[in-house]
Amino acid sequence: MVTEIERKVMTASKASISLASVPTQVKDKALETMAEALDAQRKRVLGANATDIENAEKLKQEGKLSQALVDRLKVKDHKIDEMISGIRDVIKLDDPVGKTLSALELDSGLDLYQVSCPIGLIGVVFESRPDVVPQIMSLCLKSGNAVIFKGGSEALNSNRTIFDILVDAIENTPGMPKGAFQLMETREEVMDILNMDKYIDLLVPRGSNAFVKFIQDNTKIPVLGHADGICHVYVDDGAEAKAKAKAEVNLDKAYDVCFDSKVQYPAVCNAMETLLIHKDIAEIFLPKMANMFNDAGVELRCDANSYEIINKLGLLNAIFRATDEDWITEYNDLILSIKIVDSIDDAIDHINTFGSHHTDAIVTENAKNRDLFISMVDSSSVMVNASTRFADGFRYGKGAEVGISTNKIHARGPVGMEGLLIYKYVLLGNGDRVADYAGSDAKPFTHKKLNSNLADVLK
Amino acid sequence: MVTEIERKVMTASKASISLASVPTQVKDKALETMAEALDAQRKRVLGANATDIENAEKLKQEGKLSQALVDRLKVKDHKIDEMISGIRDVIKLDDPVGKTLSALELDSGLDLYQVSCPIGLIGVVFESRPDVVPQIMSLCLKSGNAVIFKGGSEALNSNRTIFDILVDAIENTPGMPKGAFQLMETREEVMDILNMDKYIDLLVPRGSNAFVKFIQDNTKIPVLGHADGICHVYVDDGAEAKAKAKAEVNLDKAYDVCFDSKVQYPAVCNAMETLLIHKDIAEIFLPKMANMFNDAGVELRCDANSYEIINKLGLLNAIFRATDEDWITEYNDLILSIKIVDSIDDAIDHINTFGSHHTDAIVTENAKNRDLFISMVDSSSVMVNASTRFADGFRYGKGAEVGISTNKIHARGPVGMEGLLIYKYVLLGNGDRVADYAGSDAKPFTHKKLNSNLADVLK
Repeated sequence: MVTEIERKVMTASKASISLASVPTQVKDKALETMAEALDAQRKRVLGANATDIENAEKLKQEGKLSQALVDRLKVKDHKIDEMISGIRDVIKLDDPVGKTLSALELDSGLDLYQVSCPIGLIGVVFESRPDVVPQIMSLCLKSGNAVIFKGGSEALNSNRTIFDILVDAIENTPGMPKGAFQLMETREEVMDILNMDKYIDLLVPRGSNAFVKFIQDNTKIPVLGHADGICHVYVDDGAEAKAKAKAEVNLDKAYDVCFDSKVQYPAVCNAMETLLIHKDIAEIFLPKMANMFNDAGVELRCDANSYEIINKLGLLNAIFRATDEDWITEYNDLILSIKIVDSIDDAIDHINTFGSHHTDAIVTENAKNRDLFISMVDSSSVMVNASTRFADGFRYGKGAEVGISTNKIHARGPVGMEGLLIYKYVLLGNGDRVADYAGSDAKPFTHKKLNSNLADVLK
Repeated sequence: MVTEIERKVMTASKASISLASVPTQVKDKALETMAEALDAQRKRVLGANATDIENAEKLKQEGKLSQALVDRLKVKDHKIDEMISGIRDVIKLDDPVGKTLSALELDSGLDLYQVSCPIGLIGVVFESRPDVVPQIMSLCLKSGNAVIFKGGSEALNSNRTIFDILVDAIENTPGMPKGAFQLMETREEVMDILNMDKYIDLLVPRGSNAFVKFIQDNTKIPVLGHADGICHVYVDDGAEAKAKAKAEVNLDKAYDVCFDSKVQYPAVCNAMETLLIHKDIAEIFLPKMANMFNDAGVELRCDANSYEIINKLGLLNAIFRATDEDWITEYNDLILSIKIVDSIDDAIDHINTFGSHHTDAIVTENAKNRDLFISMVDSSSVMVNASTRFADGFRYGKGAEVGISTNKIHARGPVGMEGLLIYKYVLLGNGDRVADYAGSDAKPFTHKKLNSNLADVLK
C-alpha cells in the first residue's frame, strides 16, 4: 500500500530527474511567472492568512500559542512584496547546474568531466513563517532540485494558498516538469517525511532550536542546519607582557564589536552569548563595556573575577554570577555571560568546548594571536575585529540563504545555492577497456588537466 | 564515567584541533618517517600477521571463516612494499589544507575568505585487510584529520603492530601532536564508535556490502561510502529508425565495453551486473556478445526476449530466465542479467529505478541519446563508450582513494583526499558593526571579488 505521502514523495523524486536538466531560460521564466502570479493574487494570500490568524488568535487565548508565533504568522502586503523581490533576486543568480568543476584526460580520447548537478529531492520542514515557501521553492527551482514541503498546522491556509499559486505558475510554464514540488499538510506527517531516507536526499529545517534538534535526532536523512548558535567574542590582551597590554588592543574596536555582536539583534543565532576577556585587559576594558551593556538593558552573568570588577561599578541593573549552565546556553535575548581567561589558549579551549562551532570572534592587534585564533577555533565563521552578526548569507554576498550550517561535511557556515548542489562524473571514451590499463603491459594513464568544459564538448 | 573508548575518541578529537594547522613539511616528514619505520620493522609485521593467520586457519577449520577472508588477511613482503609506496605517494600529493577557495570584499577593509580545512575526526571501521591502516592514516595525516580506527578481530595482531609502528613514527616527528590517531580492538566496540556522533565527524567503512549497510543503518554520523554497486551498460540503437540501427552503434565498442565491464574484475563494485540492450539492435548484437560471455564462463540470466535470442545459439553453458530479484542483485561474480528495452527512456528508467546510482554506461554514436543519458541517469559516474570499471580513484587521477561514494551530498563517486576536507569562513575587519549596514541609512555592501588568498594576507 502506497500512502498519500509516499505517493507525493515518489512523484517529486521522479520529477527531480527531469527538473535537473531544465535549461536556465525556462527556469527563469518559471520564476518570473511565480513572481507575477503572487503579485496578481495578493488578495487570495491575504484572505487565507486572515483565516490562519483568526484560528491562531483563538489558540492564543486558550494559551496554546504565543504572541510571537502569531506575529511570525502574519502576512501583510509588504511581506508579499518581499516574497516577490526575493523570487526576482533568484532570477539574477547564475544557474549553478552543469558547470564543469574539473576536467582530466585519463588517456588520449578518454576524458573525465566533473560536472555540477542538483542534489535531487530536498525536504523542507518549517514552523509558521509562510515566506519559507517562495524563498526555498525559488532557490530549489533555480538549482534544479525538487522539494517536498511540510509546514506547521497553524499556517495551513497561508502555506497551501501560496504553494498553489506558485506551483500553478511553474507547471504552466512550457518546458517545466509536473510534480516536482509537493506540500504536506497535517502535523502527523512530520515523522513520515523524516523516515523517507530512500527518496529524500537532504532536509532543510526552518524553526526553533528545539525544532531543528528534534529533526536531527529523528532522521537518517542529512540535515542542513544548526540547532545552537552559542557565539563568543574574545577580547585579547594582545601580548604576553602586561605592560604592552593596553597598547596592543584597540579598545574602541573591542567596544564596537562586542556591543554590536550582542545588542544589534539578540534574537538570532549569530548574536554573541559569551564574552571572554584576557585577564590583563579586563580591568581596563570591562568598566566601560559593562556600562554600555547596562544602558542597553543587557543582563550580565559574570564569572567570579569579572563579577568583582563589574560589581564595584554600581550599575543600575542587577548583575548575576554565572553558573556552568550559562556557558552552554543560547539566550537569544539581552542576556550575556562574561568570563575572564588567563590566556588566548584558554579562550580557544573554552570556545571549542562550550561553543556550537557557529561563529566566534577575536578582537586583537597582535598578528600571532590573530593567526592562532583563526587556525585553532573550530567554527564555521571566525571573525577578526568584526561583529559575529556578519555571519549571514546576504552579508556574505550569496544573494540568498538556504540556512546556516554547523555541519562538518558538505556545506558549512552561511549556505547559499551552492549547498543544494553536488556533482557527477562523466567519462567520454571510444570503447575503452580497463583491461588495457592493467597487467604486465598496462598502458599508462596520462592524467593531463584539460581546460575544456563538458557543455562545449557536447555541443 | 568516561569509558576507554570515550577517552580515546576525546583524545583524538582534541588532538585534531592542533593537527589541523601542522605545516606541510612537518606532515611530509612524519609520512616519510612512517614509510621508513614500516620498512625497518617488516619482521615485526610479518610475525604479528603469522599469529593472525594461524588463528584464522583454526577458525576456518571450524567453519567460522572463509578461505577468501584468510587470503585477504595475509601480509607478505610485497604487501608491505605496497604500503610503503602508498605512504610515499601521499607525500607527493598537494597539501589541501589552508587553500583560499573564495575571497570577497564585503566593504572596504572588511574581507571574507573561505579557506579549506580538515573535517576533524574520522572514524574508520574495517574488516580484515590490515593495509587499510597505513593507507587511511597517511591520507588523513596529510589532510590534517585525526582518526579512530576499528578493525576486525581476525586481524587484531597485524593491525595493532602496524598501527603502533606508524604512530610511533608520527609522534616522534618534531611538531606533530600526540594522540591524533587511535585504535580500538575488540569487536564489541563497533557500536560504541557508531554512537560517538558528538565527536566523530565522518565514518569511512571498508568491508563487504552487508558490513557497510550495517554501519549506515546504525549510526547518525555521516558515512562516506556505498553499500551496493549495481552497475549497468546500455547498448543503444542509436536512432529511432530501425533501418539506421546497425550503422549508429559501433558494435566493436559495444563488445569491448560490455566484456570489460563484466569480466575484467567481476568481484568489485564497479563491475556491470545488468546489460540493457535496445530492441532494435538486440538480434544483431546479442549472439556474438553471448558467445563471448559464455566463453569467459559468465552465467547469463535473461528476460523473456533476450532468452529467446540467446537460447537459439546452443551455448555450452546453461542460460537462465531472470527473476525480479536479478535486477536488484549485485552478483560480484561471473553472473550477468540481461534485459531488452523498448527505448532509451526505458533503459534510463530501469537504471534509475533498480540501480544503485554508482556507475552506469551507454554505448552509442548518437549525440542526442548520449546527452539524454548523461543528463537523466542519476549516478555518480556516467560512462559514454567506456567500461564501468574505470570508476576508481586511481584511474580518475586522485593519487589515492578514500572510497567510492553514492551519497548525494558532500562527495560523490570515487573520492580522494578532497572528501576529507571542509572549509571555514574567516572575516577580517577593523571593529566593524552590522548596525552600520542596517536601518534607513544603511551602508551598502560592495561584494567585490578579491584575488588575494588568506595565507598571503596573514604573512
